[in-house]
Amino acid sequence: MGIITLLTDFGTKDPYVGIMKGVVLGLNPNAAIVDLTHQIAPGDITQAAHVMGESYSFFPPATIHVAVVDPGVGTNRKPILVKSRNHFFVGPDNGLFWPIIKANDEVLVIHLTNRKFFLPHISPTFHGRDIFAPVAGHLSLGTDPLIMGKRLENPISIPDTTPTRKGDTLFGWAVRIDHFGNIITNIRREDLVRFLGGRQMVIRVEKESIEGVMETYADGAEGKLLALFGSTDHLEFAVNSGRADRLLNLDEAHGLPVVAVDRVEPSQKT
Amino acid sequence: MGIITLLTDFGTKDPYVGIMKGVVLGLNPNAAIVDLTHQIAPGDITQAAHVMGESYSFFPPATIHVAVVDPGVGTNRKPILVKSRNHFFVGPDNGLFWPIIKANDEVLVIHLTNRKFFLPHISPTFHGRDIFAPVAGHLSLGTDPLIMGKRLENPISIPDTTPTRKGDTLFGWAVRIDHFGNIITNIRREDLVRFLGGRQMVIRVEKESIEGVMETYADGAEGKLLALFGSTDHLEFAVNSGRADRLLNLDEAHGLPVVAVDRVEPSQKT
Amino acid sequence: MGIITLLTDFGTKDPYVGIMKGVVLGLNPNAAIVDLTHQIAPGDITQAAHVMGESYSFFPPATIHVAVVDPGVGTNRKPILVKSRNHFFVGPDNGLFWPIIKANDEVLVIHLTNRKFFLPHISPTFHGRDIFAPVAGHLSLGTDPLIMGKRLENPISIPDTTPTRKGDTLFGWAVRIDHFGNIITNIRREDLVRFLGGRQMVIRVEKESIEGVMETYADGAEGKLLALFGSTDHLEFAVNSGRADRLLNLDEAHGLPVVAVDRVEPSQKT
Repeated sequence: MGIITLLTDFGTKDPYVGIMKGVVLGLNPNAAIVDLTHQIAPGDITQAAHVMGESYSFFPPATIHVAVVDPGVGTNRKPILVKSRNHFFVGPDNGLFWPIIKANDEVLVIHLTNRKFFLPHISPTFHGRDIFAPVAGHLSLGTDPLIMGKRLENPISIPDTTPTRKGDTLFGWAVRIDHFGNIITNIRREDLVRFLGGRQMVIRVEKESIEGVMETYADGAEGKLLALFGSTDHLEFAVNSGRADRLLNLDEAHGLPVVAVDRVEPSQKT
Repeated sequence: MGIITLLTDFGTKDPYVGIMKGVVLGLNPNAAIVDLTHQIAPGDITQAAHVMGESYSFFPPATIHVAVVDPGVGTNRKPILVKSRNHFFVGPDNGLFWPIIKANDEVLVIHLTNRKFFLPHISPTFHGRDIFAPVAGHLSLGTDPLIMGKRLENPISIPDTTPTRKGDTLFGWAVRIDHFGNIITNIRREDLVRFLGGRQMVIRVEKESIEGVMETYADGAEGKLLALFGSTDHLEFAVNSGRADRLLNLDEAHGLPVVAVDRVEPSQKT
Repeated sequence: MGIITLLTDFGTKDPYVGIMKGVVLGLNPNAAIVDLTHQIAPGDITQAAHVMGESYSFFPPATIHVAVVDPGVGTNRKPILVKSRNHFFVGPDNGLFWPIIKANDEVLVIHLTNRKFFLPHISPTFHGRDIFAPVAGHLSLGTDPLIMGKRLENPISIPDTTPTRKGDTLFGWAVRIDHFGNIITNIRREDLVRFLGGRQMVIRVEKESIEGVMETYADGAEGKLLALFGSTDHLEFAVNSGRADRLLNLDEAHGLPVVAVDRVEPSQKT
């Protein structure tokens, strides 16, 4: 057995993802390989980190998550393996795994240096095939991460991706637009509840402001922007029977907006 | 073992489908999971029902078909399990499985109420992950559907999707445009043959009329609309080395046309 | 076990690929099925042959590669099975497998005629489901190719796809644009090195000319066209943090350009 997930910015037009699977199956024909997504915006490490963060914990312990969003492929950026309490992560040391490393106490980061676990020939343009897929294949067979390289003390970090507070306002931002046009933010339910401390909220995004959150998409008035906690308990904007991205005229290529939540006393609400 | 298919309107940009697979594999690491499609038009239950109808019977007995086109997620619409003689179906009670329920005598419909077979926390926006995936995982391990909930006597229906006859004309409609631009109708070969009773046919769609059907795409004149029975024995329009949707200026977002078949005596043909 | 790859022009909107997998799993529930791509341009046999050529060797011995780019489906073109030393290939006899047949000495080509290994009913529009998938399923169970049909001596060929030399210039062409906008040519590193014989090179494509090749994408100046050997050791054009297809204003639908490599003495370079 052995479950391996793949998250890349490769798209699905080229055979690149299939080739990585061929390399894995050549080492472990019983691996179960799952595509998380191959449509990360090219080179967008932050988006990749967000998608990994909302996905990995739904997989069983010992799952190996391979993430290849790797604009520095072939340069001196390091190939790494991250072992948290329950999961393995394999990919480039470019910040993609930083939120996972930061959030886990017992994390082990290995700089993959032992070429015995790579393909014999390493192309400078496709480490997904030549390094990360074979490492995942070997890991899935039970190889000890410690013999695959040496501990890395200072993996690359990315800027903090959690909301900040200024007085009675919590500032977060939109991180992703999903297939349905829902806009997903980095504001978690538990952080918002703590911030509110029992008070009520007004949520502001672009020129819209919304009082409170709905339970389901269908609770909103048709055609009007609503807020709710999405499936990973992050604040999310949606439109019942419509698309929030269209209503707000947003797309990922042009950048995503700041989201502000004001905590207010009931009397303050207009 | 255990074969599980997935049909959704989730697209493939987000990790939602991969996450559902993680939940299934966490319960049954040996499940074989097959994507039918994730590109149903958002919320289009009728299209989902058509695609399921043309697909499921090519899978072996005991396959579990999970379909999540679920505009009412989180409302009081019911999660259900349908057992036909040879297959299982899991998804929302919104009409998606109605054609299968209607066409099978020995069908069992279960309202999924036993939370033991769901994830511990149910998000109101992602029952695919929290209800349907774990139910499919448990089913694939041999769990008896009868302990997963209680019989449902009146599942939601959708309008009849079979052609109607008026005198010497059979009226059906286009249900789907495929990747090649072929236009697939709801008119089945056997129903058409019975209707014709040995007479000949003139097929009308938009401003085109076609006498008779071809055997293969390559039989048509290049650039001209042709009709044939497609791979599921439904009447289909195509263009040899071209696209029928372009020739007829059709796309799914703007609705698909009625298709009329007139039965004529040989002498009547112009 | 048994690994089966799929390469088609079916897209992923329709359930056609999933249905083929259902047929395979009905015969061999333990088959591991890998998608190479389903986004070959409709009917583009040459492109399919290129993608197959860069992919198959990364799969383990005995992998079965099913390729269905089949504009002549249902006509008298033959269904075939090709056995090279290490791999099986299954699909239509239309030239798709010609480069593999030509490059292998010990190749066996079988015209698939034994209907015992097909589905009982053969639709003239979907041999992928009715012939190629079940043949792959049977092959993966160890069925001898020789009982599946009879040897075919003259499979269909496609024009030679290797570069040609004229004096001090090697002429190749672009064969594919990948997801990142990189332009992949048919010029292999080893052929180019032999042609150069130690001299230097000037590479011409459209109105651009480039002296020499880089090692990695990140070596290029931002926004400028660069050349390198891609992951399958073919000459490739790219732009660091950009897209070569946009810089050269190319897209596959409008045809891809000739690429010329001049060998020059060091003094000749400006």
